[in-house]
Amino acid sequence: MPNVQTEARLQQSLTEITALLERHRVLAAMTHRQQGPRRDLLESLQHRQNRNELRKRLRMMHAADVAYVLESLSLDDRRLIWDEREPQQAGWVLVELPGTIRARLTETTSRERLVEVLATLDPEDLGYLSPSIAPDVMREVTRVLEEGERTVLEDTLQYDEDVVGHHMTREWVAVPDGYTVQQVLDDLCGRDALPPQTDRILVVDARNVLRGAVTLPALLTQAPSTPILSATDETTTFRPWDSARDAVHAFERYDLVSAPVVDDRGKLVGRLTVDAAMDFVRNEANLQALKRAGLRGDEDLFAAPLSSARNRWPWLAINLLTAFIASRVIGQFEGTIERIASLATLMPIVASIGGNTGNQTMALMIRALAFDRIRTSGAGRVMMKELTISVLNGTVWGGVIGLIALVLYGSPQLGLVMTAAVILNLIMAAAAGVTIPVALHAAGRDPAHGSSVLLTFLTDAMGFFLFLGLATIFLS
Amino acid sequence: MPNVQTEARLQQSLTEITALLERHRVLAAMTHRQQGPRRDLLESLQHRQNRNELRKRLRMMHAADVAYVLESLSLDDRRLIWDEREPQQAGWVLVELPGTIRARLTETTSRERLVEVLATLDPEDLGYLSPSIAPDVMREVTRVLEEGERTVLEDTLQYDEDVVGHHMTREWVAVPDGYTVQQVLDDLCGRDALPPQTDRILVVDARNVLRGAVTLPALLTQAPSTPILSATDETTTFRPWDSARDAVHAFERYDLVSAPVVDDRGKLVGRLTVDAAMDFVRNEANLQALKRAGLRGDEDLFAAPLSSARNRWPWLAINLLTAFIASRVIGQFEGTIERIASLATLMPIVASIGGNTGNQTMALMIRALAFDRIRTSGAGRVMMKELTISVLNGTVWGGVIGLIALVLYGSPQLGLVMTAAVILNLIMAAAAGVTIPVALHAAGRDPAHGSSVLLTFLTDAMGFFLFLGLATIFLS
Repeated sequence: MPNVQTEARLQQSLTEITALLERHRVLAAMTHRQQGPRRDLLESLQHRQNRNELRKRLRMMHAADVAYVLESLSLDDRRLIWDEREPQQAGWVLVELPGTIRARLTETTSRERLVEVLATLDPEDLGYLSPSIAPDVMREVTRVLEEGERTVLEDTLQYDEDVVGHHMTREWVAVPDGYTVQQVLDDLCGRDALPPQTDRILVVDARNVLRGAVTLPALLTQAPSTPILSATDETTTFRPWDSARDAVHAFERYDLVSAPVVDDRGKLVGRLTVDAAMDFVRNEANLQALKRAGLRGDEDLFAAPLSSARNRWPWLAINLLTAFIASRVIGQFEGTIERIASLATLMPIVASIGGNTGNQTMALMIRALAFDRIRTSGAGRVMMKELTISVLNGTVWGGVIGLIALVLYGSPQLGLVMTAAVILNLIMAAAAGVTIPVALHAAGRDPAHGSSVLLTFLTDAMGFFLFLGLATIFLS
Repeated sequence: MPNVQTEARLQQSLTEITALLERHRVLAAMTHRQQGPRRDLLESLQHRQNRNELRKRLRMMHAADVAYVLESLSLDDRRLIWDEREPQQAGWVLVELPGTIRARLTETTSRERLVEVLATLDPEDLGYLSPSIAPDVMREVTRVLEEGERTVLEDTLQYDEDVVGHHMTREWVAVPDGYTVQQVLDDLCGRDALPPQTDRILVVDARNVLRGAVTLPALLTQAPSTPILSATDETTTFRPWDSARDAVHAFERYDLVSAPVVDDRGKLVGRLTVDAAMDFVRNEANLQALKRAGLRGDEDLFAAPLSSARNRWPWLAINLLTAFIASRVIGQFEGTIERIASLATLMPIVASIGGNTGNQTMALMIRALAFDRIRTSGAGRVMMKELTISVLNGTVWGGVIGLIALVLYGSPQLGLVMTAAVILNLIMAAAAGVTIPVALHAAGRDPAHGSSVLLTFLTDAMGFFLFLGLATIFLS
């Protein structure tokens, strides 16, 4: 079993591997320069030793650690390490890599090598990788699989990422419901090893219908003659089409390690494990932060600039459009601004404080929606509360802003217009902060995605409109 | 054991409980109105039945589910349900509640009741709750504890939230290193139950130094006469002062269910379990989203408006300050704006697109920093890449913006100034998007906290300065 490493030791490995790679490059360049009969044998030997050292280091490491190291390296170094791996190990690393980096690596790998690497994987891992593999490579790999493996692969591919079926494993330990505890123990002793994260033995009848589950600790503390069925505990079960997010929430609430998945007739079809649940939580959290900033998804930090630039275009285009619309609102008041240029100076303050408070409200709403904490009746109450806060905050901070404007420009009217515009814009921001995520959620969309751009657009446009409009009425 | 429920069934329970509470309120109001001898016995009876029904429902539920229901209810309803719970059950619910809601509930609970509830908990849960409990209540509870429990509590309290010691449990199964597999099995059979998430048996020597660990599946598949030491597998261990975040990353990388914690001399002092790791991931993700929006922390959606308003003030004040500074930048160019009012119309576009692209860069950087994917050498490379992207994006989108300005105002000079300002502001935004999180990280602070406010300030102020400055030079 490869060494597992703590974070500090992992950083250490990374430093050492980077040094070996650096040396590798220097030696390769030297050897290359001295082609021909005068080629220096010593350097060539050093080069080979260095390479062996690198290979040995990597062979000792867990696939997840190699994936971690790959992520921190430049594209060339990744290729070098990747090409060194034996097919089976290369396959495991592929499974552990984030999607974006995996896609780049497979793109630049020769078709033969890729098929060879993929063929070493079990069908579930293949199903997991399939979105980042070219369809023709996938077909070729499928042809190499055995009949049973092919069925599993096809079964995996039918589930979307947001349902339990996509995340479940097809490895479990099941025993007949007629067994005693002793028979179960004998059965287990006869096996080489149990699948990872086996914390309970599943009990099924002759038709493979789940009758219950016995946790390993419970099994170990029972009298050997006890019928296994009377040792079963209540267990949470899922269906393959259940929402993956709901299932993960259940894992969190009940501190589950694994849970059986059954079909509509109660037959055992899979098992969901806590590592899949944790990956889901992590992945969801990462994606949300990136989506809120208007990125389509994750991005390889060392990818080529052009492909990264494109990842950011869709939301930039939307942002540009909304900024232009907000700007046209100002355009309607250019006459007023020509007369009172200080309005141009003060208007971004109204817009900015509106955007800030609206985003605070929205961050709380998005979190509450993600955990189903808001129901229709609740949304009304939250709206009332947020509106109250906005009037409160608007009066306090709008008053401060109005006073500063009065001091700066010596005009009480300007101060009052400023205060009124801030109060009104904060009310608008609170309403939008509650409404936008609720509406996106009700429309079946991710409330985090792009909500920030939409909100900032509203608070900008309304901030400019309220302030300049009030100024046009009361100051001209 | 209480019923565990899937998300849909939980929503159903919530609806039913809300209905019972509604009925409770109506009946209570009726009974109250008809005081005196003419008091309607039937209604009083209905009231009691309703209350019993509610009590029965809640008793059937898992503490985590009751906590979930409480979160979705108004303050009055929470109190009603909370007061109904028996002390032990009330204690479990308290552990499952989010910190903000827990704090509100304990504030309004009588001192006697609170001490009674807390005294039912084990010392580790008490340590976990202690930050939201008044010190004098805590002292009173400590006095009730037994000697051994008090030691555990004091041990728990010494660790900060960001180290392993704070999250570890002190419940584990350890066996002497001289045992055979059969002796270990006999030992386990003699116990009532094993602690939750026990996936491995720890092997210690006479001085309690950890010698290794045997997973339960491995234990079950070994010959009974095997010495336990030769059945041990390599196991990841942590120290109490290790970073909790690093430990959680190890749980994710190696799909761990539990891992022993040892002190400097290798003695076993605790055990870290996957449920604590998952809570940590979830909590970190939630806090980050809220912090980025400039909230101090989580907030009870149904809390009183005034206390919520205060939660949002610190960052509002900072935002106001930065908005004023940005506004003073515009103030320097009021003369130019008086002559060319269209500048006021166009300037928010330059600021807005700068803020948007800077936030994209920053979101990627924060994610990379959280996983230690950026090292000093890497930051330079990422900076080069982001600057390249900003020049690319600036030229493309700045060109589009310049063209639109040309069409709208018929001035080629204005279009060119606009394009130049966008390119320069995007370069500035990219530099800030890389530098701000790296600097916060290097200073030992959370790179997510407030970074967005800082970045928007820079892109606003620089956007106004670049655009109005260039316009003053080339258009006046």
